Amino acid sequence: MDIIVLNRDATEEDIRHVVKKLEGKGLRVHISAGTERTIIGVIGDTSKVTEEEEDAFRAAPGVENVLRILKPYKLASREFKKENTEISVGGIVIGGRKIPVMAGPCAVENKTVLMAIAEKVKACGASFLRGGAYKPRTSPYTFQGLGEEGLKYLAHAREKTGLPVVTEIMDPRDLEAIVKYADIIQIGARNMQNFRLLLEVGSAQKPVLLKRGLSSTIKEWLMSAEYIMSRGNHQVMLCERGIRTFETATRNTLDLSAVPVLKQLTHLPVVVDPSHGVGKRDLVAPMAKAAIAAGADALLIEVHTNPEEAVSDGEQSLKPDHFEKMMKELKPVAEAVGRKL
Amino acid sequence: MDIIVLNRDATEEDIRHVVKKLEGKGLRVHISAGTERTIIGVIGDTSKVTEEEEDAFRAAPGVENVLRILKPYKLASREFKKENTEISVGGIVIGGRKIPVMAGPCAVENKTVLMAIAEKVKACGASFLRGGAYKPRTSPYTFQGLGEEGLKYLAHAREKTGLPVVTEIMDPRDLEAIVKYADIIQIGARNMQNFRLLLEVGSAQKPVLLKRGLSSTIKEWLMSAEYIMSRGNHQVMLCERGIRTFETATRNTLDLSAVPVLKQLTHLPVVVDPSHGVGKRDLVAPMAKAAIAAGADALLIEVHTNPEEAVSDGEQSLKPDHFEKMMKELKPVAEAVGRKL
Amino acid sequence: MDIIVLNRDATEEDIRHVVKKLEGKGLRVHISAGTERTIIGVIGDTSKVTEEEEDAFRAAPGVENVLRILKPYKLASREFKKENTEISVGGIVIGGRKIPVMAGPCAVENKTVLMAIAEKVKACGASFLRGGAYKPRTSPYTFQGLGEEGLKYLAHAREKTGLPVVTEIMDPRDLEAIVKYADIIQIGARNMQNFRLLLEVGSAQKPVLLKRGLSSTIKEWLMSAEYIMSRGNHQVMLCERGIRTFETATRNTLDLSAVPVLKQLTHLPVVVDPSHGVGKRDLVAPMAKAAIAAGADALLIEVHTNPEEAVSDGEQSLKPDHFEKMMKELKPVAEAVGRKL
Amino acid sequence: MDIIVLNRDATEEDIRHVVKKLEGKGLRVHISAGTERTIIGVIGDTSKVTEEEEDAFRAAPGVENVLRILKPYKLASREFKKENTEISVGGIVIGGRKIPVMAGPCAVENKTVLMAIAEKVKACGASFLRGGAYKPRTSPYTFQGLGEEGLKYLAHAREKTGLPVVTEIMDPRDLEAIVKYADIIQIGARNMQNFRLLLEVGSAQKPVLLKRGLSSTIKEWLMSAEYIMSRGNHQVMLCERGIRTFETATRNTLDLSAVPVLKQLTHLPVVVDPSHGVGKRDLVAPMAKAAIAAGADALLIEVHTNPEEAVSDGEQSLKPDHFEKMMKELKPVAEAVGRKL
Repeated sequence: MDIIVLNRDATEEDIRHVVKKLEGKGLRVHISAGTERTIIGVIGDTSKVTEEEEDAFRAAPGVENVLRILKPYKLASREFKKENTEISVGGIVIGGRKIPVMAGPCAVENKTVLMAIAEKVKACGASFLRGGAYKPRTSPYTFQGLGEEGLKYLAHAREKTGLPVVTEIMDPRDLEAIVKYADIIQIGARNMQNFRLLLEVGSAQKPVLLKRGLSSTIKEWLMSAEYIMSRGNHQVMLCERGIRTFETATRNTLDLSAVPVLKQLTHLPVVVDPSHGVGKRDLVAPMAKAAIAAGADALLIEVHTNPEEAVSDGEQSLKPDHFEKMMKELKPVAEAVGRKL
Repeated sequence: MDIIVLNRDATEEDIRHVVKKLEGKGLRVHISAGTERTIIGVIGDTSKVTEEEEDAFRAAPGVENVLRILKPYKLASREFKKENTEISVGGIVIGGRKIPVMAGPCAVENKTVLMAIAEKVKACGASFLRGGAYKPRTSPYTFQGLGEEGLKYLAHAREKTGLPVVTEIMDPRDLEAIVKYADIIQIGARNMQNFRLLLEVGSAQKPVLLKRGLSSTIKEWLMSAEYIMSRGNHQVMLCERGIRTFETATRNTLDLSAVPVLKQLTHLPVVVDPSHGVGKRDLVAPMAKAAIAAGADALLIEVHTNPEEAVSDGEQSLKPDHFEKMMKELKPVAEAVGRKL
Repeated sequence: MDIIVLNRDATEEDIRHVVKKLEGKGLRVHISAGTERTIIGVIGDTSKVTEEEEDAFRAAPGVENVLRILKPYKLASREFKKENTEISVGGIVIGGRKIPVMAGPCAVENKTVLMAIAEKVKACGASFLRGGAYKPRTSPYTFQGLGEEGLKYLAHAREKTGLPVVTEIMDPRDLEAIVKYADIIQIGARNMQNFRLLLEVGSAQKPVLLKRGLSSTIKEWLMSAEYIMSRGNHQVMLCERGIRTFETATRNTLDLSAVPVLKQLTHLPVVVDPSHGVGKRDLVAPMAKAAIAAGADALLIEVHTNPEEAVSDGEQSLKPDHFEKMMKELKPVAEAVGRKL
Repeated sequence: MDIIVLNRDATEEDIRHVVKKLEGKGLRVHISAGTERTIIGVIGDTSKVTEEEEDAFRAAPGVENVLRILKPYKLASREFKKENTEISVGGIVIGGRKIPVMAGPCAVENKTVLMAIAEKVKACGASFLRGGAYKPRTSPYTFQGLGEEGLKYLAHAREKTGLPVVTEIMDPRDLEAIVKYADIIQIGARNMQNFRLLLEVGSAQKPVLLKRGLSSTIKEWLMSAEYIMSRGNHQVMLCERGIRTFETATRNTLDLSAVPVLKQLTHLPVVVDPSHGVGKRDLVAPMAKAAIAAGADALLIEVHTNPEEAVSDGEQSLKPDHFEKMMKELKPVAEAVGRKL
C-alpha cells in the first residue's frame, strides 16, 4: 500500500487530481483529512505504480510526500520465497548449513603462481578458487589484468585441484568468455549499479556473486539483485565487502549488520569479503570469525603465496600459513553457531 | 617524492630489503633513523612506482606506511598544464569567462515533448540541450529509455534550435551511435569508475562530461579523468552533482567546495548539476547561484514542460517559467564574480 | 498526523491493542486494511504522542513501522511563525536584508593581538568580533583557552571598536561569565546535542548561535534549536559549518544546500562559517560568496593578523589583507541577490 | 618523527624559516631536496610539537603539508603499555579472559520495574546492571530521566542482586552523585568530545566507559580516552555503539572492525553495544555473537521486562526470555574464540 501526503495548502482540486490519477490506474483510495495534512491511503496492487509515476505524484501540486510501504523488490524478497535459496556449484552448496570459503589472489598474474596458490588454499580447506582475470584499477597506468588468458589459467587450476572458479566481469562483452571458463560470475562493487551489465548477467546460466556498492543502501543492493533475477537468473548471492564512511583506519567499514538484515529481507545467500572490507592482513581473521558468527553463508578471502609480490592488494592478502591458521580458528566458530566449515 | 615508514620493530634486514628494491628501480634513498620510526625518503621519479608496487611495499616486513607526496594523476593536474582548459562545442566555450547553461529533461520521452522543451530552454538563454536517451534506472521494471531513437530526437532538436546536445552513455556498445548524434558524451555518477567505459570514451573525439561518483573522492574523480585523458581525449569536464551523506533532507549533498578545490588541482572545466544535487525544485535556483559564486564554469539544469508527466525525476525538474526566472536571477550573480551568463 | 503500519502477520488482537492505546490518548483512528499491510491513520493532536510512546508503538506486536508526518519541532518551524526572525544585537540586525560579517581569531590569545585583529576587521567592515575564550581542543596537551580573562579582553575590544562579541560556551558553569561579557553565545558543533547546555542557554537572555553538529541531520539541528527555545529563549540563529563525510580534500564538507532547506523549514536566521567548513585559507572566499548567493543571513570568518602564530586553526585563518579583499568581493554578490553587506 | 613537506615554489628563505623554528624547539632536521618537493624530516621528541604549533607550520609560507608519523595519544597507546589493561569492578574483571555482559533498561523509570529487570538479567548471567538516571533526549518534550532518585534505585538494585552499576553522566555537576551511587561512569556518544566532562571524569576514581561518538574516528576516540587518562584516571574502557552512515536499514552502522583495530592500537578494554548499534531487537543477538567473535571484551545489552512500556528505545530492548536465549547462544561462541562468558 502507498500513502500520499498532501500539505495544509493543498486545495480540493489538488486532492481530486491525485485521486483521479490513482483511480485511473485501477486503485482505490482512503482519504483521511486531518487539520495539518491530508493523507490518501492507496489500496490495491500498488506495485503497478512505477518509480516514475511515483515521482510524478511527488511533483503534483499540493503533494508533500509519497511513502512506499511495500518493498520495491519482489523476486529477491522473503515474501516471494520463504525458504533460503541454496546455490549448488560443482557439488558445493552455498546457502546451506556448510559455509564454503572462496580463496585466492586478487588478480591472476601468471599460471605458475596461480597454481601454487590454488593448491595451497585447497589444502587448507577452501571450496572455491577466486581470482580476477580483468582488474578494475583506479589508475590507467597499472596492471589491467590478463583477460581471457587469465581465465584459462583459472580453468586449468580447477582442472588440477577440483576447485570451482569465481571471477569478476568488468564489461558485458566479456560475458561469453567468462561463462565458458568460470563457475561463478562476480560483479564488483563499482558495477553494482551498472544496469546494462546486470541485465546481461541476468540472461546467463551461471550463479552471480553481487558485491555491495561502496555506498549502496541495502535496498539499492536488493534492487540490483532484482535486476538480475528479473531476466531469469535467480542464482544470485550477495557479498558484503565494506562501505565507504569517514573512518580511515580501515580501507572500508565492514557492515556485518547487513548479514542479519539481509537474512530478514531476502532468501538469497549472503557472502562476506573481510579482505576488501578491512584492507589489512591482521584484521581479516577476526572479521572472518565475526562474519560467521553474524550468520554469513560463505566467505571470500584473499590469499597469495607472496603478498609482497602481488600485483595488487598485497597489503590485505593472507599468506598460506596465515590462511591455514585462520581456517582452523574458523571451524569452532562455525560450530558454535550451528554451522560447519 | 615518496616516503616509506618502518616501525620500531623493523630490522636492519628489513630496511636493506626496501632500499634494495628502490635502488633496483633507479631511485635514490635518504634514510632518517629515529627512535620510534625509520623514515626512508625516496628521491627520483617516483611516478615509476606503480600502484601495485606501492602495495607491495606496504606488504613488506617492517613497513608501517607508504606516503605519496605527489599526486597520482598527471595529465589532469595543474602542474601539467597551468592554463585553464577551454572546451569549444559548436562555437560555445566551456571553461572561459562565459558560463553556459545546459538544460533539458532528464529523459527523452518523445519527439514532440523534447522539441517543446528545447525551444523553451533556448528562449530562456540555455546554450546546450541535455536529455538521456538511455536511462540508468534503479528498478528493472521502469522506463529504460528510447535508445537510438532518442538520440535522433535530440539531433532533430539541435537542427531546429541550434542547441548542441549532451547525453549520457551507459554501455561501451552505444558509443558509435552517441558519437554520431551527440556533441558531449556524459558519463553518469554510477559509471565514474566503469574503467572500460572510460577507456572507450577516451578514444573518442567528442568532449566528455564526467560526473562525480556518489561517494567518490576528488582524487578518485581526477584519476577517472586521467583514465580518459590517457587514451588521448583531453576534452574532459568535471561535473559535481552531490555526494552521498547521512543527510536525507536533500537527495544528495551538493559539495560546492569541490569547485574551488578542483580549480586549484586541475585545469579542467568544472560544471555543477544542482538538480540532481538537491533533488527538489525549490532548492535548484539558490544552489545554481551558489555554484556560480563558487566559481563553476557551467551549469546542468533539469527542465521539463510538465514535470508531473516526466517519466523520471519530475520532483526536481523546473518548469520553463521557473527556469526563465532563474536564468534572469543568475545573470547578476555571474557578473558579481566577474563572469557572464 | 501519524501513521502506524502493521505487517501481514499482525492479528486482529494486535490491531485492537494499538487502536486502544491511541484512543486512550484521545486520538481517533482511520484503519485501511490492505492485502499486504494494515495502515492505521492517526487523527488528532499527535504532538501529544511523545518520542517514547512512539518507540513503544514500534515495539508493539505486529507493528512494522511508525511514520511521523508532522515535524517534531514547533517553535522553530515556519508553521509556527511565518515571518523571518530578526535578531538585533547592538543595533545590528541578523536575519534582515543586511548580511553582517562576524570575524576574528579562533582563540583569544592575548589582549594586544586581539585588539589588533579587532581593529583590522572593523576597518574592513565586520559587524561582530568573534573569538574563543574557552577552546575545545582534541588533545589535552594543547592550549585550553584563557577563560574569563579572555572574555575580558573581548569586552575590552568591544569597548574600543564598538564591535559586539560572539564567543563559545563549553560548560554550563561558565554561563554567568559569558552572559556578563559577551553579546552572542555560541554553541559549538560538538555540543549541539549537549542537552543540559542547551537548556541552560535557553534560560539566558542573550542570542544563541547554534552550530550544526559534525554529523547532525537538519532535523536534529532544529530539535536542538527547539530545546533552547522551549526554555523561553527564541533568539536562536543556526550556523552551518560543514559536515563530516568521506572526502578528505576539505576539513569538512560545507553543506550549503542546508541554507535554502532551512529557509523553508524554519524562521530562524541562518549563518554560514566557511572557515571551519573548508579548513583551508584559499577556499574561504569562494565559499563565502557561495554562501551569500545561497541565501545566508550572516557569515562567520576566521581572521588573524599572523595566522602562523595563531595558537589554533592557523591554516584556515585569513590575514587582514585577504579579509579586506574578500569583503570587497562579497559586496557585489550580496547585491546580486538583493541583499547588502 | 614528523615530516614537513614544502611545495615546488618554496624558497630558500621559506625552508630556513621552518628549520629555524624546529631547531628552536630542540629538534633536529634532515632535509631531502627533491625536484618536485622538499621534505624536512624532523628528528627528536616531536611530541613537544603541540597541535597548535603543527597548525602554525601548516600556515607557514611554502608548506604544503605536515605529516605526523607518531600517534597523538600516548597513555592510551600500546607503545606506552604492552599488556592489556584489566579493570576490576566488584570482583569482576573487564579486559581479561572472561567476557562480562552489562544489561538493563535504557532508562531507569521506577524502582519496581528496575528491580524486576535486575533480577531477570542476573538470573540470565549478566555481570553488571546498566540503566540511565539522566537521559539524553533529542526532544525537550520527552522524559528527561529521574536524576538522583534514579541513581538510588540503581544502588538499591545492586544491594539486592550484587550487580555493579553502569550509568551515564550528562553534566559535570552530576559527578558527585554518580560517583556516590554508581560503579562505572558512562560517557555517551554525544559527549565523547565534551572535553570539560572528560576532564572532570578524569579526576574521578571510578572506571569510565567511553562510547564512541556518532562520527568519531578511532583516532579522535583514543584522544578522548587520552583526555581522561591525562588527568590520572587510567581505568578507561572503550565502547563501540555504531557510527553514522548513509544506511538507514539500521539505526547506526555497528563498526565491529573497530574491535581488532583498537586491540592493535591500545591496551584499553573494548566493549560493544549492539543494542544501540543496530536499533532493532532481532539484530541484537547475531551482532552480539559477531562482537565476541571479533574479540570484544564485554557486551552492553538493553533488556526490559516490557519493551512496549519502556520510556525509551523499546524497539531495541530484549525481553528477558530473548536475553536468556541469547546468553545461552553466546556461550559456545565465546569458547570458540578461547574466551568464557
